[in-house]
Amino acid sequence: MKPNADRFLTDLHELRRFGATGKGVVRPAYSDADIAAREWLAGKMAAAGLTPHFDEVGNLFGLAEEPSLLLGSHSDSQPEGGWLDGAYGVISALEVARTSIEQGGPAISVVSFQDEEGRFGVTTGSSVWSGGLSLADADKLMDNDRITFAKARSEMAHLVTGPMVPASKFTGFIEAHIEQGPVLDQSGESIGVVSGIVGIRDMRVILKGQQNHAGTTPMHMRKDAVQGLMRISHRVAEDLRNVVTPLSVWTIGHVSVHPNAASIVPGRVTFSMQWRDGDLPRLDRMERVIRQAIETTASDLGLTVEFGPMLGLDPVAMDSILRGRLAAAASIETPDQWRDMPSGALHDATNVARTLPVAMLFVPSIGGISHDFTEDTAEADLIAGLRVLARAAAGDSAI
Amino acid sequence: MKPNADRFLTDLHELRRFGATGKGVVRPAYSDADIAAREWLAGKMAAAGLTPHFDEVGNLFGLAEEPSLLLGSHSDSQPEGGWLDGAYGVISALEVARTSIEQGGPAISVVSFQDEEGRFGVTTGSSVWSGGLSLADADKLMDNDRITFAKARSEMAHLVTGPMVPASKFTGFIEAHIEQGPVLDQSGESIGVVSGIVGIRDMRVILKGQQNHAGTTPMHMRKDAVQGLMRISHRVAEDLRNVVTPLSVWTIGHVSVHPNAASIVPGRVTFSMQWRDGDLPRLDRMERVIRQAIETTASDLGLTVEFGPMLGLDPVAMDSILRGRLAAAASIETPDQWRDMPSGALHDATNVARTLPVAMLFVPSIGGISHDFTEDTAEADLIAGLRVLARAAAGDSAI
Repeated sequence: MKPNADRFLTDLHELRRFGATGKGVVRPAYSDADIAAREWLAGKMAAAGLTPHFDEVGNLFGLAEEPSLLLGSHSDSQPEGGWLDGAYGVISALEVARTSIEQGGPAISVVSFQDEEGRFGVTTGSSVWSGGLSLADADKLMDNDRITFAKARSEMAHLVTGPMVPASKFTGFIEAHIEQGPVLDQSGESIGVVSGIVGIRDMRVILKGQQNHAGTTPMHMRKDAVQGLMRISHRVAEDLRNVVTPLSVWTIGHVSVHPNAASIVPGRVTFSMQWRDGDLPRLDRMERVIRQAIETTASDLGLTVEFGPMLGLDPVAMDSILRGRLAAAASIETPDQWRDMPSGALHDATNVARTLPVAMLFVPSIGGISHDFTEDTAEADLIAGLRVLARAAAGDSAI
Repeated sequence: MKPNADRFLTDLHELRRFGATGKGVVRPAYSDADIAAREWLAGKMAAAGLTPHFDEVGNLFGLAEEPSLLLGSHSDSQPEGGWLDGAYGVISALEVARTSIEQGGPAISVVSFQDEEGRFGVTTGSSVWSGGLSLADADKLMDNDRITFAKARSEMAHLVTGPMVPASKFTGFIEAHIEQGPVLDQSGESIGVVSGIVGIRDMRVILKGQQNHAGTTPMHMRKDAVQGLMRISHRVAEDLRNVVTPLSVWTIGHVSVHPNAASIVPGRVTFSMQWRDGDLPRLDRMERVIRQAIETTASDLGLTVEFGPMLGLDPVAMDSILRGRLAAAASIETPDQWRDMPSGALHDATNVARTLPVAMLFVPSIGGISHDFTEDTAEADLIAGLRVLARAAAGDSAI
């Protein structure tokens, strides 16, 4: 099945114009630009021979006859978005579906999920579609300006075609996406066949010492919460050494010090501790090690520690058949220029995996950059990904 | 010279009522409560036989005939102030001056400096009085609500008696103050004879790494500015080991992370580095070690570092004669219950030392607490300090 690279690039650049500013793409979920882009997409789907379908939360499907393989991603962007994040997976899906119809290939449907970028929830549209979040609960979510999800989706109410499309219409889901990390860029390879979506654990920790005058309190009498955090960070890194692999990650991204004044020994620090790994038992082992390191260090220093609720998502396995088709396609289209790799980030595929076999394919992010106006991927890699997706979607059919 | 402890305590508790709330003392510089308290003080000074004098910034002197020994402190408080911080030194000075007049002792003047707590500057009133800050520059200072010093002091303009009192009217300055630290409280002693006011160095440091996705960026590819700060803190502590004494202090009190989100590897951290020591060469050695530790660690980790301007005050020596008189007085009034110790905090004495010989005397802070509504000192210690101050002020006169 040979997709049309020029037609694909034309569509990709046309989608880029929706919400384009002098600096980059601004196309948040339910904005005028987002709705206009979806209307444009629906037209493209219809022209390709698919049946457009908007559900109640604004997910847009281009349906083939059933049962079909579903391809796609999301077309809403970050507030200061990259032009490829999500858009790449939607337009490559459209081109593959169109090619399949033209060249007598298998039935392929297309989807652009809504609010993947989390203006309201986290991968909201696919979360509701896959049953991870009820519509009633989703409707109460608010964005940073306190607009409700219910209000926002009402802007698209005139486009709703019908109820949620049942997952039973599809045999599986493949999402093509930019890597949003530095691995392929560093290695010089073109394609990543995703081995799994890593699991995530995230918790807030409150460390309390004793606020004091930074001039009159001798060092040995201090209970400095910032020093406590320093020791915890060191201890966590040491203790995780025998537990992690080079692919495991952990991050202290948020730090909030009280009272945060140069002349006052900090009495309290709140920080985030987040870790990710593709293996569930390892994720749990990391949790035990991290909690222990925090508690022991705090106790050694005479500080108190309070753990907030731990949020998390378990690792999501890719379907071995779909993943195998992507690997086979990559070895033909981009021999020696591809690798198996985990996805460190969440995607709509995370949610869809609740109801369907899923697989994902990555193309490189130049400089590892994403969620930034300067996000980009070399054209040759965009086309390589399209070809791998098309070949994998064709599957056993001799196209 | 025997001061009247009951009269002293009565005055101290009466001053406490100015700006008293249900929780504690709220008497910031130039507030109605502060101005009312100073008017009351002026009345007390006059009744004691001193001549009240308000200068242009609101410092209040109770002048004896010249030349006189000056005793005092400040009567403005922190926004959530302790009742003794500053007030103790003013009322003990008043009682000693009054006693000296009654009992034929030497000439003693009293002062309550204005804005020691830094609503506008840092020890602003004594800074202007001693020539450390010009009135023109002081007038441009603003408080947190952007009210200028010029505007605030105009609230007291009707009280101004005349120009700045020249330092030549005084032979020296002794300030009695609460320790605001835990040393005397821990040791169970009643009196601290201050050996010197430590010097301070303070600078902001900006550490820059690379902001990145916390899920997709492998650990070995990160330039995490928070991890950089952790390593710097560790390195500074190690490297200072051979340079400091148990009385040296250093503090990272302010930390500001960007973008400060749990899922983003921090690309930038701004932090304060402050250190204090009573020995000027050691203060400079600490600076070299600290800068080196920061630069080396940043370089090892591939981070960039930017040093902000370094602010500082050099150590201030106490006058050996006045200090000797305090020590002699303490060994008589509180034998085996006193010690020599540095002042880790700034006081008005820091500024007055520019123009006069100075000495300071500490009484304990219960729990080491200050700048807090719960600040307190045992009555017996307040009285012990008063007696030591009186005996030291009497000096060679056989009173």
